[in-house]
Amino acid sequence: MENVSCDIKRMEDKIVTFSKFGDTGKGGITRLALSEADFQAREEFCKRMKALGAEIVTDDMGNIYATFKGSEDLPHIAMGSHCDSVVQGGNYDGILGVLTGMEVAETIVKENIPHRHPITVMIWTNEEGARFDPAMMSSGVITGKFDKAKMLASKDMEGVTFGEALDASGYKGDEKNRMNPKDYKAFLELHIEQGPVLEAEKVDIGVVEGVVGMVNYEFEFIGQAGHAGTVPQKMRQDALLAASEAIQYLHRELDKLDEKLVYTTGRIICSPNVHTIIPDDVKFTLDARHQDPEVIKQVVEIIKNIPSELAKCKVSYKELWSRKTVSFNKEFVDFVEKNAETYGYSNMRMYSGPGHDAQFVADMLPVTMIFVPSIGGHSHCEIEKTPVENCLKGANVLLQTVLDIDKK
Amino acid sequence: MENVSCDIKRMEDKIVTFSKFGDTGKGGITRLALSEADFQAREEFCKRMKALGAEIVTDDMGNIYATFKGSEDLPHIAMGSHCDSVVQGGNYDGILGVLTGMEVAETIVKENIPHRHPITVMIWTNEEGARFDPAMMSSGVITGKFDKAKMLASKDMEGVTFGEALDASGYKGDEKNRMNPKDYKAFLELHIEQGPVLEAEKVDIGVVEGVVGMVNYEFEFIGQAGHAGTVPQKMRQDALLAASEAIQYLHRELDKLDEKLVYTTGRIICSPNVHTIIPDDVKFTLDARHQDPEVIKQVVEIIKNIPSELAKCKVSYKELWSRKTVSFNKEFVDFVEKNAETYGYSNMRMYSGPGHDAQFVADMLPVTMIFVPSIGGHSHCEIEKTPVENCLKGANVLLQTVLDIDKK
Repeated sequence: MENVSCDIKRMEDKIVTFSKFGDTGKGGITRLALSEADFQAREEFCKRMKALGAEIVTDDMGNIYATFKGSEDLPHIAMGSHCDSVVQGGNYDGILGVLTGMEVAETIVKENIPHRHPITVMIWTNEEGARFDPAMMSSGVITGKFDKAKMLASKDMEGVTFGEALDASGYKGDEKNRMNPKDYKAFLELHIEQGPVLEAEKVDIGVVEGVVGMVNYEFEFIGQAGHAGTVPQKMRQDALLAASEAIQYLHRELDKLDEKLVYTTGRIICSPNVHTIIPDDVKFTLDARHQDPEVIKQVVEIIKNIPSELAKCKVSYKELWSRKTVSFNKEFVDFVEKNAETYGYSNMRMYSGPGHDAQFVADMLPVTMIFVPSIGGHSHCEIEKTPVENCLKGANVLLQTVLDIDKK
Repeated sequence: MENVSCDIKRMEDKIVTFSKFGDTGKGGITRLALSEADFQAREEFCKRMKALGAEIVTDDMGNIYATFKGSEDLPHIAMGSHCDSVVQGGNYDGILGVLTGMEVAETIVKENIPHRHPITVMIWTNEEGARFDPAMMSSGVITGKFDKAKMLASKDMEGVTFGEALDASGYKGDEKNRMNPKDYKAFLELHIEQGPVLEAEKVDIGVVEGVVGMVNYEFEFIGQAGHAGTVPQKMRQDALLAASEAIQYLHRELDKLDEKLVYTTGRIICSPNVHTIIPDDVKFTLDARHQDPEVIKQVVEIIKNIPSELAKCKVSYKELWSRKTVSFNKEFVDFVEKNAETYGYSNMRMYSGPGHDAQFVADMLPVTMIFVPSIGGHSHCEIEKTPVENCLKGANVLLQTVLDIDKK
């Protein structure tokens, strides 16, 4: 099978076709979960998969499974991702994992490539959580991370629940159709990197070893409000000054840790936030991610060592949430690396910073992911772009990895 | 007249009575300009002033003038302030200048104190600008700072214009009744300090020399957005990190200037302000005030010397507005100081940080102000408080200053 390859024209056609479903007219898409645009994408997926001979089922969360029978009675090898997007998102995040899965299946069918295991191409429902909170909802439910009843009650901005939207969608199926460890052997998810590293390093394929662990903290600074024109500087307790000192402290100390640590102070809320009033309450968040739990421990130590008072303001912090590092199946990771090498694609091992459905699935099945470059590192925006040549390279590595697993 | 004094029971009655108009039930008031609560306060003012023999007129901005005839045909000596408040404001800001004016007039009438000049107690319309932007609207119009047509068109949150509210109020009078330099000799405004200095220094009376000059700038930091989990630290352009460095720079440099300088970074806007996204656009304001224009010049120099790049982000700034220092009439200031001394009240010279109607009036008439302490420096909030004993001391100084000016 060394010479087999997916088809660049077909790959391009898939990308162009699906970019119409939810087209914003400005280069991107708005394709919220279980919206009309999502239904268009799902219909096109089902139509194309059926035309190639797939049998299609859905589970009780609306996840779609398009399966091509194997020559033996064995568990499925699944691949896929999600087709929903954020508001004014791009044409690659999520959907590329579906489209490359479709292209791999099409190549296997059209080239008559023998396979022992059933091969399933999947769409996960509501990965973004942009319409119904939280993100990764359906993989969360079927892996037991989220309570299904709570998820069905999750409301969109207009008060429609996920359960109502699912009932009306026509995509609600049986719970017995869920991906599960007995009937499934593997899950593979191709995704855009959503960051700038692969492009900056001029690398074709990200060999994803896992999803980094993270902590998210909120800091709060309590000062004393007062009129900008009346309170002498020496008598002030300025919560924004305290917060700026804390941001400086965190950057100074965290920069001493491992260089692969990424951390972000992304959200700041200042109260009363009036130009003529000394701020008395400022909060900001710190998001820190690293694959090594020891480094995350060091981050938490630095957080704990923040002075209890800055600029005469009271300093406090709390953990909002955290997640442990998820490691993917080492053999699958090796397959991805080997296959990139075989095709002559430059590649590098890396961890995913963002979360993906695959990280939840990794708790019940052997899993890995394949990353392709994001131009400019852009993601969750309309200018999101991965050249079709890179998409094809990803599809080829995905194809060979499916076939490697099929041989096992 | 050395022994004459205002009456503490009457002073207290005035404060208690007026605190009912717009009572929030939580210790403060919401008495927006030309609201029902404002009308109640205006009616009570007119009723009490008429009962003491005043003649009442209003001008075309709804300002009220209650005048007690003098023994000679001379220009008026006016005193007063505003009776509107911010949302959930206190019982002292503005209204205390009206109530002490009323108490001074009542003392003069009841004690039969002879005076050559007509004595006028005033209410300025819409000083706070809390319902109709801008603040100090009516003193701004009659001193030619603001365009009257624009002010009449200023809308509240419900779309009602100031002009419509004024027409419906019954307080719209003739333009010829406006305070003017020909018919008025002086304007005196007693006000709470709105800051913590008098209380901290245990001083009864603030002898106000003027209103400090100020500049207000907005700084902007442009970085590059990116996912919190994907962009390596070294590749980031974090606009919030840049802003925090700028806040530190400004505090470090401005703290080297005169200790009477007050400056505030009160408002910060971070975009997109999401905990998982690197901020790409942060703005914050700097408000700086000092009585000496040379110090304000030094502030502007420091602003101009801010690095054009911080944390790899582009730094820019612009002046939003400024005002020059306003100096009050030196003779009147001396009167206030002398009268505080005569009564044995501790006193200190100071400049006002906040703006007041008196600062606009100072362009057309000799003016001064008297400050009384604000407990805890609180202002524009429900816990605003000045003990009645302090209010009485202020009224006594106001009374003697009116009588001093009357002798001139």
